[in-house]
Amino acid sequence: MGLGRFGRSLALELVDEQTEVLGIDEDLEVVQSLSGALTHAVRADSTKEDVLRQLGVHEFDRAVVAIGTDIEASILTASLLISFGVRDVWAKAISEAHGRILAQLGVHHVVYPEHDMGRRVAHLVRGRMLDYIEFEDDFAMVKTRPPAEIVGLRLADSGVRSRFGVTVVAVKRPGEGFTYATADTVLDAEDTIIVAGRTRQSERFSDLR
Amino acid sequence: MGLGRFGRSLALELVDEQTEVLGIDEDLEVVQSLSGALTHAVRADSTKEDVLRQLGVHEFDRAVVAIGTDIEASILTASLLISFGVRDVWAKAISEAHGRILAQLGVHHVVYPEHDMGRRVAHLVRGRMLDYIEFEDDFAMVKTRPPAEIVGLRLADSGVRSRFGVTVVAVKRPGEGFTYATADTVLDAEDTIIVAGRTRQSERFSDLR
Amino acid sequence: MGLGRFGRSLALELVDEQTEVLGIDEDLEVVQSLSGALTHAVRADSTKEDVLRQLGVHEFDRAVVAIGTDIEASILTASLLISFGVRDVWAKAISEAHGRILAQLGVHHVVYPEHDMGRRVAHLVRGRMLDYIEFEDDFAMVKTRPPAEIVGLRLADSGVRSRFGVTVVAVKRPGEGFTYATADTVLDAEDTIIVAGRTRQSERFSDLR
Amino acid sequence: MGLGRFGRSLALELVDEQTEVLGIDEDLEVVQSLSGALTHAVRADSTKEDVLRQLGVHEFDRAVVAIGTDIEASILTASLLISFGVRDVWAKAISEAHGRILAQLGVHHVVYPEHDMGRRVAHLVRGRMLDYIEFEDDFAMVKTRPPAEIVGLRLADSGVRSRFGVTVVAVKRPGEGFTYATADTVLDAEDTIIVAGRTRQSERFSDLR
Amino acid sequence: MGLGRFGRSLALELVDEQTEVLGIDEDLEVVQSLSGALTHAVRADSTKEDVLRQLGVHEFDRAVVAIGTDIEASILTASLLISFGVRDVWAKAISEAHGRILAQLGVHHVVYPEHDMGRRVAHLVRGRMLDYIEFEDDFAMVKTRPPAEIVGLRLADSGVRSRFGVTVVAVKRPGEGFTYATADTVLDAEDTIIVAGRTRQSERFSDLR
Amino acid sequence: MGLGRFGRSLALELVDEQTEVLGIDEDLEVVQSLSGALTHAVRADSTKEDVLRQLGVHEFDRAVVAIGTDIEASILTASLLISFGVRDVWAKAISEAHGRILAQLGVHHVVYPEHDMGRRVAHLVRGRMLDYIEFEDDFAMVKTRPPAEIVGLRLADSGVRSRFGVTVVAVKRPGEGFTYATADTVLDAEDTIIVAGRTRQSERFSDLR
Amino acid sequence: MGLGRFGRSLALELVDEQTEVLGIDEDLEVVQSLSGALTHAVRADSTKEDVLRQLGVHEFDRAVVAIGTDIEASILTASLLISFGVRDVWAKAISEAHGRILAQLGVHHVVYPEHDMGRRVAHLVRGRMLDYIEFEDDFAMVKTRPPAEIVGLRLADSGVRSRFGVTVVAVKRPGEGFTYATADTVLDAEDTIIVAGRTRQSERFSDLR
Amino acid sequence: MGLGRFGRSLALELVDEQTEVLGIDEDLEVVQSLSGALTHAVRADSTKEDVLRQLGVHEFDRAVVAIGTDIEASILTASLLISFGVRDVWAKAISEAHGRILAQLGVHHVVYPEHDMGRRVAHLVRGRMLDYIEFEDDFAMVKTRPPAEIVGLRLADSGVRSRFGVTVVAVKRPGEGFTYATADTVLDAEDTIIVAGRTRQSERFSDLR
Repeated sequence: MGLGRFGRSLALELVDEQTEVLGIDEDLEVVQSLSGALTHAVRADSTKEDVLRQLGVHEFDRAVVAIGTDIEASILTASLLISFGVRDVWAKAISEAHGRILAQLGVHHVVYPEHDMGRRVAHLVRGRMLDYIEFEDDFAMVKTRPPAEIVGLRLADSGVRSRFGVTVVAVKRPGEGFTYATADTVLDAEDTIIVAGRTRQSERFSDLR
Repeated sequence: MGLGRFGRSLALELVDEQTEVLGIDEDLEVVQSLSGALTHAVRADSTKEDVLRQLGVHEFDRAVVAIGTDIEASILTASLLISFGVRDVWAKAISEAHGRILAQLGVHHVVYPEHDMGRRVAHLVRGRMLDYIEFEDDFAMVKTRPPAEIVGLRLADSGVRSRFGVTVVAVKRPGEGFTYATADTVLDAEDTIIVAGRTRQSERFSDLR
Repeated sequence: MGLGRFGRSLALELVDEQTEVLGIDEDLEVVQSLSGALTHAVRADSTKEDVLRQLGVHEFDRAVVAIGTDIEASILTASLLISFGVRDVWAKAISEAHGRILAQLGVHHVVYPEHDMGRRVAHLVRGRMLDYIEFEDDFAMVKTRPPAEIVGLRLADSGVRSRFGVTVVAVKRPGEGFTYATADTVLDAEDTIIVAGRTRQSERFSDLR
Repeated sequence: MGLGRFGRSLALELVDEQTEVLGIDEDLEVVQSLSGALTHAVRADSTKEDVLRQLGVHEFDRAVVAIGTDIEASILTASLLISFGVRDVWAKAISEAHGRILAQLGVHHVVYPEHDMGRRVAHLVRGRMLDYIEFEDDFAMVKTRPPAEIVGLRLADSGVRSRFGVTVVAVKRPGEGFTYATADTVLDAEDTIIVAGRTRQSERFSDLR
Repeated sequence: MGLGRFGRSLALELVDEQTEVLGIDEDLEVVQSLSGALTHAVRADSTKEDVLRQLGVHEFDRAVVAIGTDIEASILTASLLISFGVRDVWAKAISEAHGRILAQLGVHHVVYPEHDMGRRVAHLVRGRMLDYIEFEDDFAMVKTRPPAEIVGLRLADSGVRSRFGVTVVAVKRPGEGFTYATADTVLDAEDTIIVAGRTRQSERFSDLR
Repeated sequence: MGLGRFGRSLALELVDEQTEVLGIDEDLEVVQSLSGALTHAVRADSTKEDVLRQLGVHEFDRAVVAIGTDIEASILTASLLISFGVRDVWAKAISEAHGRILAQLGVHHVVYPEHDMGRRVAHLVRGRMLDYIEFEDDFAMVKTRPPAEIVGLRLADSGVRSRFGVTVVAVKRPGEGFTYATADTVLDAEDTIIVAGRTRQSERFSDLR
Repeated sequence: MGLGRFGRSLALELVDEQTEVLGIDEDLEVVQSLSGALTHAVRADSTKEDVLRQLGVHEFDRAVVAIGTDIEASILTASLLISFGVRDVWAKAISEAHGRILAQLGVHHVVYPEHDMGRRVAHLVRGRMLDYIEFEDDFAMVKTRPPAEIVGLRLADSGVRSRFGVTVVAVKRPGEGFTYATADTVLDAEDTIIVAGRTRQSERFSDLR
Repeated sequence: MGLGRFGRSLALELVDEQTEVLGIDEDLEVVQSLSGALTHAVRADSTKEDVLRQLGVHEFDRAVVAIGTDIEASILTASLLISFGVRDVWAKAISEAHGRILAQLGVHHVVYPEHDMGRRVAHLVRGRMLDYIEFEDDFAMVKTRPPAEIVGLRLADSGVRSRFGVTVVAVKRPGEGFTYATADTVLDAEDTIIVAGRTRQSERFSDLR
C-alpha cells in the first residue's frame, strides 16, 4: 500500500526475487507506470475496508504500509490490516509519534527510512568511508580504502585485528567483484575493502591514510 | 540545511562523534527543539545567498542539503553551495529527476533514503533475515539465525563457505555484543550471526531453518 | 482535550458536580471564554508529548479526548495518553474507522455522539414520544403523555403492564417535577410520564392516543 | 437532508422500524453506500428550492435537517422546509447561534447532539455508572451495579427508596435481558440495574460500592 | 453593520442629515477610512452576541445589516438583532434565498440593491430617459427631455395629460435647479423635465422625439 | 455580460418590455436557469475577443457589463466593447476606482448600485417615508402618508406648497392604484401619497405626523 | 511602481545615469534590498490614491508602471497616474488585452518585454548572430563575426554593401572596445562586427562563414 | 517548451523565417490558439522524460525553455534537454538564482527578458530617444531626431563625429524606410536617424534639441 519512492523500490526489489506483489496506490499515474513491472498494480483507496476486502488483502500473510506523507491514511490502512489479522504487517513511519501510534495499533515492524539513512550518511559525510552500516549492538561494517601501513602485507601479518580492533572481511580489486579476505590476502592501495568491528574502531580505522 | 527526520538524525549522529555542526532550517520550532543538541542551530532561509554568507557557509568544507519536500528550495540551496565552491556537497533527492538535477549542478554525493531503504526492507519482508545490507557489486551482509544443520559444529567443520558460499563474520550470544567469528566458533540455535557473501547466496542461506 | 460543543458541555457538567477539570484546546478564544468556568483552561497543543507532560497530564487518572474534527490530532493525543499509562481514557469518535483505531490504540471508552443521538432522535421524529433512551439489551425508557384509556385509573387497575408490557416509572404533574409512580398513582391527560419496557412495546405504547 | 453520522444513524433506525425514508445528501459516495439500506437515497443539493420540489419534499409531513458542518446549507435547507409548510421540521444545530437561527426561522425541534452527549458522558466519566440519562426536571436514570449493602436483600427490605431516594426500575442477570424489578427482586453483585431518581441522589447511589 | 459600498453610502448619507451613526465592520482599514466621517466607527465582529452587547447595539432602535458578501455573517448578525428586540431591522439581501431567510428570522425590511438597480437601469438602457424610478402599483417617475411637439406651448395647452397620460411634475432650465411645473410653464427643447404616470405611458412619452 | 442579481433583473425587465436580449455569463447553471426567459442566453467568457465576435457582440448598439465581483473581468470586457466601437456601453462599478477606470476606458454610463441604493435606503431608515428617490439637483420624490394637518382638506386649501415647500403629485387610496393629485383632491389618513420637492423639505414633510 | 526584475533593472539603470528615482513596491523585502541603491525606495500600495498623493506622485513628470503579474493592480495604478495628469506614463503589459486596456486608459507608452525579447531571441536561436536588434521599418543591427570572404580586405574593397546589402558600422578587436569602421578598416577573423541593413539581408550576411 | 508571451513571440518569429518549430505547452487553450501558426504545437508536460522522448525532442539540435513562471518546471525541462545532449539549449530566467542554476545545469544561453528590457526602457524613459540598444562594451545604437545644429548640413560638414563622438548610421525620411547615411546625406528636422557611439555620448547627442 503506497507506491512512492520507498514502496516502489521495495516492490520492484521483491518482484526481482520472484515474489508476487500486489501494489496499491491512489494515484493512477503511479499505478500505470508500474503496471508492467509488478505482478498486480491497482489504483485503490487503501483506507476503505470494503476496497481492501475486494482486493483480498485480508487474506494476505504480509503487507507493507508504505504511505509516505499522509499520516492519517497510513494509520487508517494499518488499522484495517491489523483488524483483518494479517500476520506480518510492516509500516513506514515519518516521525516518532507516527511510529508510536503504528506500534500501539499492533503493527509488527515499524521502519524509519529518513531517520536510518540520516544516521548512516552522517558517517560517510565525516570521513573517508565509502559506505557504512551499523548492526545493532555497536558493531559496524565499513567500506573503505586500506591505510598505507597495511598495504603490501599479508593480512595475517598486518596486525589489523590486534592493532585496530577490526577484521577485514572482503576485498575488491579494481574492475572485479568482492571476494572474502583470508589470512593470505595482500592489500593494494587501489583496493576497496570491507572491515567489521566496533563502531568507533571501524571509523577510526577508516580515518587512517 | 534542512532539519527534518533525515537532517536531524544526520546532525545528531555527527554531534555524537564530536563533529561541529551548524544546523539550518526555516522552521523556528524545529530549530528550537535542536538548539541544545547541535553546536549551532539557526532559523534561516538557505535559498538566499546573503543569508548563507552571513552564516559563513561559503567557508565550510562540507555541507549537506537535507531539504526534504521542497525540490525548488533544495535546488536553490545546492546551487549556492556549488557556486561558493564548497568542496564536498551532499544532497538528498526524493526522485530520479531531482537527483539528476542535483548531479548536473555539481553536487558531489546524491542520496536517496526512501529508495535505498525500500530496497533494503524488501529483503527483510520476504524472509527470515533480521537485517540486510548490500554493498555494491553483488555482495551483501545479512543478520540472521544459524540454520539447524550448522548448529553445534565448529565453523571450520560446518562447510558454510563451501556448501553455501557465505562466510560467518560475527556472532552474538544472547545478552552479549557481537564478536568476530573464528574457525573455532561453535554456533548455538539462539545466537544471532552476520554472514557475508553474494546477494543470492546470502539470502538463500538465511532461508534455511 | 478539545473544548468544542462536546468537550465544553462535558467539562461544564463536571465542574457543576465539583469535579476539578483541566481543559485544553488549541483555540485561544475558546479557552478564554471558558477560563472563568473551568478549574483550569489552557491553550496548548495536546498532540505534543512535552506539552502534555508540562501540564502534568501524564499523572491524571482520567482523560477525555474530545477533539472533534481533526482525526489525526485525536489519534495523536489518545496515543500519548495511552503511552503515559493514564488509567481511564475516553475518546469521541466521528466515524467507525476512527473508533476502531482508538480502540486498537487502547482507549478504554469510545463515544459516538452523532451516531447515538441520530438513533435516539429517530424515535422522537417518528412518533408522539417526548424523549427516548435505549439501554442496551432491548430495554428503553420513554417520556410521553398517558393514552386516554389509562387516564383517570389507578395504575394498579389500568393493566398497563399486562396489556402493554410496560411499567410507568415516574409521573410529572404540570408545573411540578417528576416523582415515582406507585400502584395508587392516577394519571391525568396533562401529565408527563416515563415508562420503561422493551423497545418495541415502549414505542407502541407511546403511539396510543 | 444530510447523511453524515447523525443523519445516517437516524435514517437507518427509522428504516429499522418500517418507516419510509427519503435520504438526501450532496456526496455521491455517501448516497451510494446507503442506497440499499434506505427506502430512497438521492444525491441532491437540498439548498435549492426546485430540487426539493422535484423530489416532492414540499409534500412531506416530517423532515430532518441533519447537515452537520455547513451552517449556511443547514439554514438554507431549513428555510425552504419552513416556507413549504412542512408540519414537523427537525434540525441539528452545532452551536448556540446556529440553534437560535433555526428556531427563529420556525424550525419545530432543534437538536444539539454534541452538547447533549457531552453532558451525558460527563456523568459516566466521573464515576462507576455504566450509563446515564437525564430527563428534564432533575430526574435521571442510571445503569449501574448494585452496592454491596443491598445485595442479597429483597428490594422491599433494602430501604433503597427511603435511604437513597432512588427506585430500582429494572434488573439484568448476567447473560439475560432486563426485566422489571419488583418488591421481591433480590439483587446479586453481578447484576446490572437501572435506578431512577433525582440527579444527585442517583449519582450518589451509583458511587456506593 | 457592514461598511462596504452600500453600508458606507447609507451611513454617510445619514450623517449628512445629522443622524448619529455607529458603523461596525470587521475590516480595520475600512473602519479607519470612515472614522472621521461617522459619529462612531468600530472594528468588531458583529456575529458575536457579547461584542454587540458591549457596543450597546441591543439598545438601539434601528439597525441596518449591510453585510454584502458573507451570507452567514449577515444571517448571524440579523438573528442577534432580532433576538435583542431591536424595533426596526433593515437588511440587505444578495439573493432570493437570502432575502427569504432574513424575512423568516423576523427582519422588518429586506432590501435588494442589485435587483432593484438592475430593473431601474433596464429602463434607462432602452431609451432616451435620463432617470427612472418606479413606485409600486404601476406608477413611475421619469426624467427626460421634452418631445418636440410640446416644446413652446403652455403645459395647460399641450394636452400632455390627455394625449400621453402623464403629468409634468417639475422642470429644470439649463444651469438651474428643478422647480415645480405649473399650468403656465412653457418648455424649451433644452429643459430637463420629470414626468409622472403609469409605467408604460411614461416610457412611451420619453420615447417621443 | 454578467447575469448575477443586477444583470438578471436588468435582462428580465428588458425582455418584459419586448426588447431582444443576449445574456452572457460564465456560469452554466445561471445561463440554464434563464434560458427560457431571455431571447438568447449563452455560457461564454466575455473577456475573450474571439468569443464576443463569434456571438456578434461587436455589431450590437448597446451593451451592459454587469459583471459583479471580478473587477478584472469587468474591465477586460468593457475594454473589448469600447474597442469594437459599441455605441452605448453601460457598466456596473463596485468601487470608486473601478468606476474611474471604466470611465477612462470610455464606458458611456457607469452605474453604482450599492452606492445608490445605500443612499436611498438611508432616507427610509431614518424616518416615516415609504420610498424615496432623489433626482440630481436637490430634488426628491417621497412616498409617505399624509400628515394629520392636511387630512380632510382640499389640497388647494391645505397650503402644502406654501407651508412645506412640496407638491403632492399623486395619491393612492387603499386597494387602488396611484392617480394624479389635483387641486380638488382631499386626502384621507389611510392614503399613500407621493410628494415632490427639495430634498430637505420633502423629508421634513414626511416627518410630520 | 513595481520593483520586480523589469522595474528593478530600469530603476538601477536610471540611478546609474544620475536620474532621481522613487521606487515603490508592496513587498518589504524587495524595497529593503534596493533601499541603498535607489534615491528613495518605499513600501506602499500603489493602487491607493491617498498613498500615491502622500508620496507626491501626482506631481511627477514621469512614471513607470512596472507591475508584472497582477493585471488589476497595474490597471488601478495606471488609472490613478492618468487621473493625476502625469505627463509621461509608461507601463509594462503582459498580454495584448492588458496592453489594449492600458492604451485605452491613456497610458502614453506601453512596453511588452516578453514579447519583444521573444522576437529578438528568435533571431539568435536560428543562426550565428551574437546579438540582434530590429528598429522599425525592416532595418536591423546584427552583431556577428566577419565571413571568410571579406577577412583581410579593406572594407572599401570588400564589396560588402554592393554584394550583401549591408554596412559594417563598427568593429571590435579581441580585448578592445568597439570603434567605428571606416573604408580603410581591414577585418580579422577574430573580430566582432556590427552590421546594419534590411532584416533579411543582415541575417543572410551573418549566416555566411 | 513554454508558449507564453516570450515563447509565442519567439516561435512565431521563427516560423516567419521558414524555420520548423515544435511548440510544447501544458495549456490546451494556448496550444490550440497556435496550432495553425506553428509547424507543430502539442500539449504535453515537458518535465517528463518519456513525454519528451516520444516527441523526439532528444534528437533536436536546438531547444528553447521559455517556461515563465514555474521555476521548477523550467529547471526540470532544462535538465532533461542537457541530459539528452541537445547541442544548443536556450532558457529564459526570471531571477538571478534561476539563471545561475540554469547555467550550472549546462544550459548554453540564458536570457533575462525582464531585466534586459528594464535596462533598455530606462534610456527611453529619461530622454528624447525613440529607441535604444546597447551592445556589450559600452557601445550603443540610438534612434532619435536630429538636433537643430546639424539639420540642413551635409553629414561630412556637420562635425557629428568630431564634436559629439557619434556616427549617423541610417536615416529615415517621413513615409519611407531606413537607408544608410553617407557623407553627402543632409538631414531634415522631420527625419528619424540611427546613431552609433559610446553609450554616454549617444545619449548626450540625443538630448540635444
